[in-house]
Amino acid sequence: MIKGFPFFLLVSVLLFSGSAVKADNLRGTGDLGVVIERASGSVLIVDQSERARIGRVEGLGDLSHASVVFSPDQRFAYVFGRDGGLNKVDILAQSLVDRVVQSGNAIGGAISDDGRLVAVSNYEPGGVRVFDAETLEMVADIPTGSKTIGLVDAPGHRFAFTLWDDGETWIADFSGGRTPEITKVTGIGENPYDALITSDGRHYIAGLFGEDGLTALDLWDSKPAPRRILQGYGRGEEPLPVYKMPHLEGWALAGERFVLPAVGRHEVLWVDARTLEEAGRTKTHGQPVFAVARPDGRQVWVNFAHPDNDTLQIIDTPSGEVVHSFKPGPAILHMEFTPRGHEIWVSIRDAGRVDIYDTRSFEKLGEIAADTPSGIFFTARAHRTGL
Amino acid sequence: MIKGFPFFLLVSVLLFSGSAVKADNLRGTGDLGVVIERASGSVLIVDQSERARIGRVEGLGDLSHASVVFSPDQRFAYVFGRDGGLNKVDILAQSLVDRVVQSGNAIGGAISDDGRLVAVSNYEPGGVRVFDAETLEMVADIPTGSKTIGLVDAPGHRFAFTLWDDGETWIADFSGGRTPEITKVTGIGENPYDALITSDGRHYIAGLFGEDGLTALDLWDSKPAPRRILQGYGRGEEPLPVYKMPHLEGWALAGERFVLPAVGRHEVLWVDARTLEEAGRTKTHGQPVFAVARPDGRQVWVNFAHPDNDTLQIIDTPSGEVVHSFKPGPAILHMEFTPRGHEIWVSIRDAGRVDIYDTRSFEKLGEIAADTPSGIFFTARAHRTGL
Repeated sequence: MIKGFPFFLLVSVLLFSGSAVKADNLRGTGDLGVVIERASGSVLIVDQSERARIGRVEGLGDLSHASVVFSPDQRFAYVFGRDGGLNKVDILAQSLVDRVVQSGNAIGGAISDDGRLVAVSNYEPGGVRVFDAETLEMVADIPTGSKTIGLVDAPGHRFAFTLWDDGETWIADFSGGRTPEITKVTGIGENPYDALITSDGRHYIAGLFGEDGLTALDLWDSKPAPRRILQGYGRGEEPLPVYKMPHLEGWALAGERFVLPAVGRHEVLWVDARTLEEAGRTKTHGQPVFAVARPDGRQVWVNFAHPDNDTLQIIDTPSGEVVHSFKPGPAILHMEFTPRGHEIWVSIRDAGRVDIYDTRSFEKLGEIAADTPSGIFFTARAHRTGL
Repeated sequence: MIKGFPFFLLVSVLLFSGSAVKADNLRGTGDLGVVIERASGSVLIVDQSERARIGRVEGLGDLSHASVVFSPDQRFAYVFGRDGGLNKVDILAQSLVDRVVQSGNAIGGAISDDGRLVAVSNYEPGGVRVFDAETLEMVADIPTGSKTIGLVDAPGHRFAFTLWDDGETWIADFSGGRTPEITKVTGIGENPYDALITSDGRHYIAGLFGEDGLTALDLWDSKPAPRRILQGYGRGEEPLPVYKMPHLEGWALAGERFVLPAVGRHEVLWVDARTLEEAGRTKTHGQPVFAVARPDGRQVWVNFAHPDNDTLQIIDTPSGEVVHSFKPGPAILHMEFTPRGHEIWVSIRDAGRVDIYDTRSFEKLGEIAADTPSGIFFTARAHRTGL
């Protein structure tokens, strides 16, 4: 490092930039985020306040179904790729710090509430692998003998995940150290395909591919038992072909109700947050993929499966009525609200663009060029359970 | 800046630290915070992950009743002093960027959901003044002719606040620009002394000094009307002397209920989050000051007024029972959870110390020396409504 160091260059740079060198490096991380560029295996680093992209990091592998979690300091993004790749991106330095290909085929990950452990859910081989968030060294391997889905963090240094083949949910408790204590709950149902945890970390809810309804576990119980809810979910008088199973992770509290996409129908469902029973339906433009409540719960934004994926609808929570519809562009894949909900970012894959809207006036405030953008993830997720 | 610059020193420092110079300056802001040192007019800058203080900023005036809000990027802390001082602290550079003494006697502040406006609530002269968050230039002056309390941010670029003398709540809407549209709601009650907004920004609730009960406004209504709730609040069969009016800002959702300190009684009250009706009481060790729900709502931590202010109690939410009591030290003034609730920081004024506890095992994990510490504020507040 010392040999050949260009002293003259260094000194002159410092002279020109003066004390601003230090200040220029300083940047808060609370309003940053990453946008997945799914076709090119890269992520954009974005600044919400500037409504701008501020960098790009490449070489993250297959990001065709990627998700992201953040370190508690909001400096590092852990990007989970479809190819089993676990990528650690330094948002401030705008670099790929580390990359581990930890399985052949993975589906999502989670970070523990203390930020020390990152877990990845695998199809091939089935199971969950848990890594040190600092070094990406593997600290626990939990084979399940099944495709493993619905991996989430839960309060108390725990992870919960579900076995597609066996209909079991496992809760891995790392509060005693790096060897987890595992609780297995059987009887979840036939072929759970996805799951979520409510934002308070209390209810873990799995969607079933082979049966109607969903299965809920109350993690506040000392021995959580499966409870079947929403028996009509996924069924209807005249079911339509299902173009895409809706994502379950979008459940958010809208007033006193959760809102979720119906399966194979042009509807969203309202669910009483207390009883977990159906509390109404709203007709929509197409088959919903994400139904995301604005952080204050007052409105819900919905996007749709092909061929209606050029449209967004906004639903008023108290009345359950659609109050606004518009067509931002072709192939709307994801939406992310700013943490307090005043703006929303929308990825429009086939336009190569992320649009930014005011959530009250629906006015377009800006746009960012991106290569096949899909998921948008803001750093505020670091402080939330189950995201 | 060029003249007299010690080149040799600079070069040698750079040689020893090498390329780490740049990396050393980079720091995420998601896990930082400030601790008010009330007697010395200073704040400590702390790092939750390191469980350490990393700096101190002085010269902030009278911090005997101080509160703090954060910019959306979590780089700047706005510290509101009792002396009317509005201080802007750069957490990363560890410096006081700006200080405006904007009134003679102030009580708290708020930051708009877009992070562009900072508002301060004043006793003397009464009213609210609103400043540009970047420059601290005053952009709006809203005199009320009354001591003004209970200032909070509400979704939609709004601030809500209440007039002690007149029993009115005003909602100032800045969505149209820097001249607010003001809605006045009368009939709030006699001498409202404090108010809060629920975390979804929907219910604004004022405590009354001159009457029993509280007054709630539903901000989702187009014309919010006062609704009296908890008629027994502040009254009892044999009222005790009130040593300190409890803070209202601590209301947090614990499962399906809010929890709040009773007035002048050794109890906390449970309130149904849906109906805002009383749903139970729990006997406590003393008169509660703060009753703060852990972020997952599963437990509630309570501190007490003098002479019981050396004690903390932890209440189990489902059963409403005290599950743990202990005495960290003399004059416990404040508690702050890490954003996902795995640890809690407790300021113990008369021990000159902030203690850090594991919230499951109650084990002490660390401590930080501080000069008369009071409020502890973590940067994750930037992303929450009403804090």
